[in-house]
Amino acid sequence: MSDLKQHISSAFDRDLESIQAQIMKMGGLVEAAILDAAKSLETRDTELAEKVRAGDKVIDALEESLNDEAARVIALRAPAAMDLRVVLSVMRMSANLERIGDLAKNLAKRTSVLVELPQIGGTATSLRRMARDVELMLKDALDAYIQRDEKLALDVIQRDLDIDQMYNTLFREFLTFMLEDPRNITTCMHLHFIAKNIERMGDHVTSISEQVVFLVTGEKPDETRTKADRTSIDPALSTDFPVDEG
Amino acid sequence: MSDLKQHISSAFDRDLESIQAQIMKMGGLVEAAILDAAKSLETRDTELAEKVRAGDKVIDALEESLNDEAARVIALRAPAAMDLRVVLSVMRMSANLERIGDLAKNLAKRTSVLVELPQIGGTATSLRRMARDVELMLKDALDAYIQRDEKLALDVIQRDLDIDQMYNTLFREFLTFMLEDPRNITTCMHLHFIAKNIERMGDHVTSISEQVVFLVTGEKPDETRTKADRTSIDPALSTDFPVDEG
Repeated sequence: MSDLKQHISSAFDRDLESIQAQIMKMGGLVEAAILDAAKSLETRDTELAEKVRAGDKVIDALEESLNDEAARVIALRAPAAMDLRVVLSVMRMSANLERIGDLAKNLAKRTSVLVELPQIGGTATSLRRMARDVELMLKDALDAYIQRDEKLALDVIQRDLDIDQMYNTLFREFLTFMLEDPRNITTCMHLHFIAKNIERMGDHVTSISEQVVFLVTGEKPDETRTKADRTSIDPALSTDFPVDEG
Repeated sequence: MSDLKQHISSAFDRDLESIQAQIMKMGGLVEAAILDAAKSLETRDTELAEKVRAGDKVIDALEESLNDEAARVIALRAPAAMDLRVVLSVMRMSANLERIGDLAKNLAKRTSVLVELPQIGGTATSLRRMARDVELMLKDALDAYIQRDEKLALDVIQRDLDIDQMYNTLFREFLTFMLEDPRNITTCMHLHFIAKNIERMGDHVTSISEQVVFLVTGEKPDETRTKADRTSIDPALSTDFPVDEG
């Protein structure tokens, strides 16, 4: 019986390894999509943007196969509580990764629209820097998962506040450009959406990091993390946008 | 053995019923949140907006308990493939519902900002109508789930195209108001975000409906559903916004 148990357990471990390899592969593709999408925006490279859009199908397919595999493992191995928690958290993480991939695709979609419009200041460069920071957060979140490193995961969650702050700053910039010259409005609306999309990527990375903390400690990280959103405190500051959640 | 099997099976059915009751309760709360948030915007009712914001905590708590319950059922009953599919789809649906709840909360958040700003035309009324349509879609998606009604679920997916179209129309309206008078810019940026949030609610309802189709048929609905998004076809139409996915 104990031999059988050990046999089952190591089969589960092999399955889990395969699932973890898949999630790291997916994570790598999503990281590349973030960087490429932001680069395509700054360099006005529609070919690269098209590559990101096409590549999203691969990410979606990986999520699907990962979910099938996870469901298969649950059905076949009937994992114990802690192991089940790992498999379920992988499913949630893959959903977050898939959504970040979608957001990168949306960013790339707007690139093909924006190349037809005039450029505005150094905003594309600021957006690329913001995207780069989110990509580094994602890299660390995935490392934190593999290493079961609660401290690193908490650090990533903290860094998302900087992303929110970057978003607020960019929003004010866009508003200034629009007020300065109405011909900037259409471009700024697109750029604003891109900033918002990158901010949302940060939220998904935060959610992945929260899964890591939950996995390691069995508890959710403090839910009352301060949102760098001042509009909900003082509505008069309405040039700041409420930072959306979810 | 067959008695034992039957015993296990009916215990599973009871568990599933309890989970389904929870998801319907959650769905009801989310429907109310959509309607109340949109009403608070149109009637500039900050008290109602505050109620929506506070109520989101209940929705979040329901999602959490639903996930715990689903994980418990999987661990305890080791459901067979088809039953497992039902439980996993409920977990995904609850994630969609939770996100719609977040979007309603975000809408309500902006209400408290917008009451400080001048009203613009009948846009709040249009937004409320759009929200009402999404709420009806959600109602039907949940009915489709309970009845395992593939046809109704496909109908809901189809209706999301109208929501995308409403969003495109509103976007053009906001742009006109902004070009007309730069003092409208801040208000229109907020209203535009609300329109986008409602459009995203529609996407989540679509995703719930797709889960229903998958449950009934074992296959995903045709993935190439036409997005009512013309910008990706003709970038010159850049007053239309690319309809984001995900």
